[in-house]
Amino acid sequence: MTSYFTEEASVDAVNGRMGADIDPRLREIMTCLVTHLHAFIKEARLSQEEWEVAIDFLTETGKICSEQRQEFILLSDTLGVSMLVDAINNRRQPGATENTVLGPFHVLGAPRHEMGECITLDGKGESCLFEGRVTDLGGNPIEGASIDVWSDNADGFYDVQQPSLQPRWNNRGIFVTGPEGRYSFIGIKPVSYPIPDDGPVGKMLKQLGRHPYRPAHMHYIVTAAGYQKLVTHTFVGDDVYLLSDAVFGVKSTLTAPYERLVDGITKWRSPFDFILNPA
Amino acid sequence: MTSYFTEEASVDAVNGRMGADIDPRLREIMTCLVTHLHAFIKEARLSQEEWEVAIDFLTETGKICSEQRQEFILLSDTLGVSMLVDAINNRRQPGATENTVLGPFHVLGAPRHEMGECITLDGKGESCLFEGRVTDLGGNPIEGASIDVWSDNADGFYDVQQPSLQPRWNNRGIFVTGPEGRYSFIGIKPVSYPIPDDGPVGKMLKQLGRHPYRPAHMHYIVTAAGYQKLVTHTFVGDDVYLLSDAVFGVKSTLTAPYERLVDGITKWRSPFDFILNPA
Repeated sequence: MTSYFTEEASVDAVNGRMGADIDPRLREIMTCLVTHLHAFIKEARLSQEEWEVAIDFLTETGKICSEQRQEFILLSDTLGVSMLVDAINNRRQPGATENTVLGPFHVLGAPRHEMGECITLDGKGESCLFEGRVTDLGGNPIEGASIDVWSDNADGFYDVQQPSLQPRWNNRGIFVTGPEGRYSFIGIKPVSYPIPDDGPVGKMLKQLGRHPYRPAHMHYIVTAAGYQKLVTHTFVGDDVYLLSDAVFGVKSTLTAPYERLVDGITKWRSPFDFILNPA
Repeated sequence: MTSYFTEEASVDAVNGRMGADIDPRLREIMTCLVTHLHAFIKEARLSQEEWEVAIDFLTETGKICSEQRQEFILLSDTLGVSMLVDAINNRRQPGATENTVLGPFHVLGAPRHEMGECITLDGKGESCLFEGRVTDLGGNPIEGASIDVWSDNADGFYDVQQPSLQPRWNNRGIFVTGPEGRYSFIGIKPVSYPIPDDGPVGKMLKQLGRHPYRPAHMHYIVTAAGYQKLVTHTFVGDDVYLLSDAVFGVKSTLTAPYERLVDGITKWRSPFDFILNPA
C-alpha cells in the first residue's frame, strides 16, 4: 500500500514504497532506519536551518575522506556507534576477555617474532615487558594461539601515520603461544594521543565540549582454532583519559597494571591474561 | 557523570560525555540523535559487515557531492526526511494551501512579468494557461502577493541543468497580484522526470525496488506581507507517478486539474487558488 506523505504517517509512506521482491534483510534494516530517523526528527522538531547544518556537516565529512582518512568511521567512533556494533556482535560468556574496536591502524602481515623479542624499532619510549597467558574459560592454556600486537610510538603516532619518520613495522609483531599458553614481548609503554581533530568531527567534539584524546593502549588480535576471535586493547591503568576515551573503547576489564622495574633496561612490566570464548 | 561504555548503557555513556557549557539546543539535538541512532542499531542488530556497507555508502555519497550535485539532499529527499522537516516547520490552519519541498532548482532573481505573459522561452512543450487567485483563509483577495514560478521544460530538465541548451530563465518568472488577487501566466504542461539516479542514492532506490521519478509539477513560492511564506508545487492531476513521487512531495490537496482547450494556441488550462496562512 502506498499513500501520500503526511507528517503523522511519514514512516509508513516511506517504508510502504519498498518493492515486494527486495532483499529481506535490507527491508528489515531500512524499515528500522526510517522509523528511528523520522522519530528523531519529530522528537527534536528539527528546523529547516538545523537540517541545512546537518546536510553541510555530512557533506564536509564526505569531502575530507581519502585513502588516508576515514572521517565517517571517526564520526561513528565518536558517537559510540562503532563500539555498539562491536558489543552487539561480540557478546561473550562471563570471564572471557572482552572485545573493543579494531581502530584504523591495524596492518595485516606484521613480522612473526619469537617470544621475548622486542618490537620497538625506533629506540624511542619507555620499554615495557608485556607478558601473560592465553587460556580457555576453565584456565587451561591454549597452545598455538596467534597474538598480533601493535601500538603507537612514544610520539603518539603509528608507523603507518609516519612512513618517512618511523621504521616499517615499528611497534608491531605476531607471536604464537607454546604448550603453556604463555606470551611475552618487549614494546613500549604506549602514550595517549588525539584522534585526527582538524576536520568536521574535531569541530563537532569541540562544540560538544569533548576532547579528542584516546587513553594509552596496546592493541591485540588473539586467534586460536576453536575459539572466537578476540580484537581488543589493554589500557594503561592510570591514564587520565580512561573515563573519557574519545571513541568509548575502554571497558573496565581491559585496564592493565604497569609495574615499574628498578633493574635492567626494561622500565615497565605489564601482565595481562587473555581468556578466549569458545567459537 | 561519565562512565565506561556498555551495550546496555551506551546512550548514557555517549550523551554523558557532553560538556556543561555547550549550546543547549545542540545538546538537545545530539542527545536525541544518539538515543535514536543507538536504538536503531540495537533493534536492527547491525552486523560488522552491514556497518561497513553503511560507512562505504556515506563515503560514496560524500564523494559525488559537488557544486552541481548534492547527493545528501537527494538521500534526505528519498528517505522522506526533507518532506518531514518541511511538514514540521509549516503546520497550517485547515484550508490554507500546504507546503512542499523547495527542491534544488529554484533560482533567485527570476525576471518580473506582467500577468498573462509567457515564461517558456525555448518553444518546446504543450502550452498551458495557469490562473487563479491568491486569497486569505476567508477568501479575501491578497493584493501585492509575489508569485515566483518555475518548472522543467518539455524534455524534463530545468534551465540550470542545461545552461548551454536552454535559454536563461526558461520557464521561470515572477508575477505580482493586483487588487483582485488574480494571477495568470502561460507556461507548459510540466513533464515527469527522474531525480539523478546514477549515484549511490540511485543504487539505493534500485535495491529498494523504487523508481527515481517525480510526477510532473509546477513550482511556486508565494509571499505577501502579513502571511506565512508558501513554498509549494501544483501537480499534474493525472500523472502516473502521483502516488510514488521519489521524494514524497505530493499532497492530495496539491493536485491541479489540467483542462484541454480546443481553440487557440494554448492547449491546456490549469486553475489553482493559493490560500495563505497568516504569519
